[in-house]
Amino acid sequence: LISRNVNVQLPSHRYEVRIQPGLLESVGDFVKKLPGVSSIVIVSDSNVADLYGKPLLESLARRDLEANLLSFQAGEQHKTLSTCSEMFDRLFSLEPALDRSSLLITLGGGVPGDLGGFLAATALRGIRFLQCPTSLLAAVDASTGGKTGVDHAAGKNLIGAFHQPVGVLIDPLCLKSLPSEEFKSGLAECVKHAVIRSADLMELLESRRKQMLCLDPEAMTELIAANVQIKADVVVADEREQSLRAILNYGHTFGHAFETLMGYGQVTHGQAVAWGMLAANCVAVSRGLLDEAAADRVARLLGALGLSTRPGKFEIDDIWARMLHDKKTRSGRVMLILPSAIGSAEIFNDLSREEVARAMEKLWGE
Amino acid sequence: LISRNVNVQLPSHRYEVRIQPGLLESVGDFVKKLPGVSSIVIVSDSNVADLYGKPLLESLARRDLEANLLSFQAGEQHKTLSTCSEMFDRLFSLEPALDRSSLLITLGGGVPGDLGGFLAATALRGIRFLQCPTSLLAAVDASTGGKTGVDHAAGKNLIGAFHQPVGVLIDPLCLKSLPSEEFKSGLAECVKHAVIRSADLMELLESRRKQMLCLDPEAMTELIAANVQIKADVVVADEREQSLRAILNYGHTFGHAFETLMGYGQVTHGQAVAWGMLAANCVAVSRGLLDEAAADRVARLLGALGLSTRPGKFEIDDIWARMLHDKKTRSGRVMLILPSAIGSAEIFNDLSREEVARAMEKLWGE
Repeated sequence: LISRNVNVQLPSHRYEVRIQPGLLESVGDFVKKLPGVSSIVIVSDSNVADLYGKPLLESLARRDLEANLLSFQAGEQHKTLSTCSEMFDRLFSLEPALDRSSLLITLGGGVPGDLGGFLAATALRGIRFLQCPTSLLAAVDASTGGKTGVDHAAGKNLIGAFHQPVGVLIDPLCLKSLPSEEFKSGLAECVKHAVIRSADLMELLESRRKQMLCLDPEAMTELIAANVQIKADVVVADEREQSLRAILNYGHTFGHAFETLMGYGQVTHGQAVAWGMLAANCVAVSRGLLDEAAADRVARLLGALGLSTRPGKFEIDDIWARMLHDKKTRSGRVMLILPSAIGSAEIFNDLSREEVARAMEKLWGE
Repeated sequence: LISRNVNVQLPSHRYEVRIQPGLLESVGDFVKKLPGVSSIVIVSDSNVADLYGKPLLESLARRDLEANLLSFQAGEQHKTLSTCSEMFDRLFSLEPALDRSSLLITLGGGVPGDLGGFLAATALRGIRFLQCPTSLLAAVDASTGGKTGVDHAAGKNLIGAFHQPVGVLIDPLCLKSLPSEEFKSGLAECVKHAVIRSADLMELLESRRKQMLCLDPEAMTELIAANVQIKADVVVADEREQSLRAILNYGHTFGHAFETLMGYGQVTHGQAVAWGMLAANCVAVSRGLLDEAAADRVARLLGALGLSTRPGKFEIDDIWARMLHDKKTRSGRVMLILPSAIGSAEIFNDLSREEVARAMEKLWGE
């Protein structure tokens, strides 16, 4: 069967992202090779634990590895410090006791990945963790790069830490249980990667759209590997988001605002980012940075992938206020990533309220 | 006036620890030199905020720097994730809004330092922080090294992160407001540094004991600088506590167990560590590693500094159970630091329940 590896070589840490249909059954093989693992705990959410908790435990058991499985209630609204607090209570009462040689495996989409990664980053000031993403969004985006964290009422991912995993194991067969909305959410992030870094990926998305939409394992393996490679290249160049890594926030300045205004869980992250990319493209076109044809091509692809291209209705003042509160906003200057062509993007710090208003009016068809 | 600087040169980060009587008045000068600070927030506890909040705010105001002062209820029992949660609510509703260029200043003893440092480590995945320790323990120990975190019911500092400050500013004049028990607690950590790394510091403690006990600013500046230098040397050699740094845990294997068993706040950290050092010395003497005269010398100094040399009474089983739960315990092997002479210590992973029992019986005089 097809299999792809992407190496993530950071200054102080190297790890591998492996993508392979059926890989969930081989997690035990990977863990067995890690040196000196004293105990294993799996962190998942209630949905994913039901679906894949048993196969993962069995994969470990085949290599004589025992593990505790801890799950919390599924949903972005539970990605909070309060859930962390409950999880710490359970982590610190495990038998055998958690110690610095313990391994934490995150199993699930972005929420168990981000929250579980944050638990690993902060339990005993940091223990090793292995990511097993089961959603497309987590596979192509969140699982690579070491960003962990939880949401706060004031905004997404406001509490967190950088903590790199020991590995990322992605089984595209897990995607078959993913709700359609979540799948499309992941596709939106793939479009994001294409627009900011790779005209090739744009063509892949356009040409193999049908195989992808019916979850062909080979097409999905190729798609995920291409996206992980882009993410890894950017992260390796700029682990702590000092500069280049910021281009990954294309679509996120508007997208985060939409997500917060609609309330967590009311819109998928990818759908919000899709609207955000369209809004950013409007700004880019009106600044003369991007030609209209390229902007239309992005909109057409998003539509063809089943994503909405017309954002929900909000007050401009509310959108602007959320942007001013974004953690990437510095000294009141709102960061925005704008594409200059398919495959190329730049970072700006001068988005104005007026441009927000004009972009939204255009998208709303006013 | 006397002033001392200690450079902490880590692989990826350099900062300075400055010790100078009256330094609190010059914090504004230090902050003014930091590049691109968008906003300043001070994190302190209710006691220290009352004493030194105003002088610190004034020091900043003299350089036209504004700051918000947030304080939480004083006491180790409040060094929890729950306090962090409340503090995040306040941090994320500040005006101007916290952003990645904000500076967090911790003002106080170990609790505001550790908790405030953890807030800085995890707010927006990490912002800069400056330590202004006002207790001797925080000055000589916690403020250098980048360990941040909070306690959990299952043990001390179980939740945390490594996050290095941009600087540490220590004003020995702040020590005059320190309760006597807290001052002695700090002296116990100084004795710890002497025993594990410096016969010179041991002699300094013995010879200038009287000036120290009456808080002579020059003697205290020398004492703090000598201790920070030792701590910095060890931390630079081993930032993430993979090996050498573990010797700083001399006295802590027993000490943490005593502290947990008595309940946080019922005994000072330093007093618990003092008992812990005496217990470790018993083990070292009975193993033939340390001669009895050196052990007696340590006990005499601790007594002369006003520390108790007779631990409280606990069940051996309870002490042992706490040790097994310590975050430094790996695969059931309890780590213990044992001195082989004044100024030299080694790391062991083979403490037995039997040795714990014998050491405690000796110290209890049974």
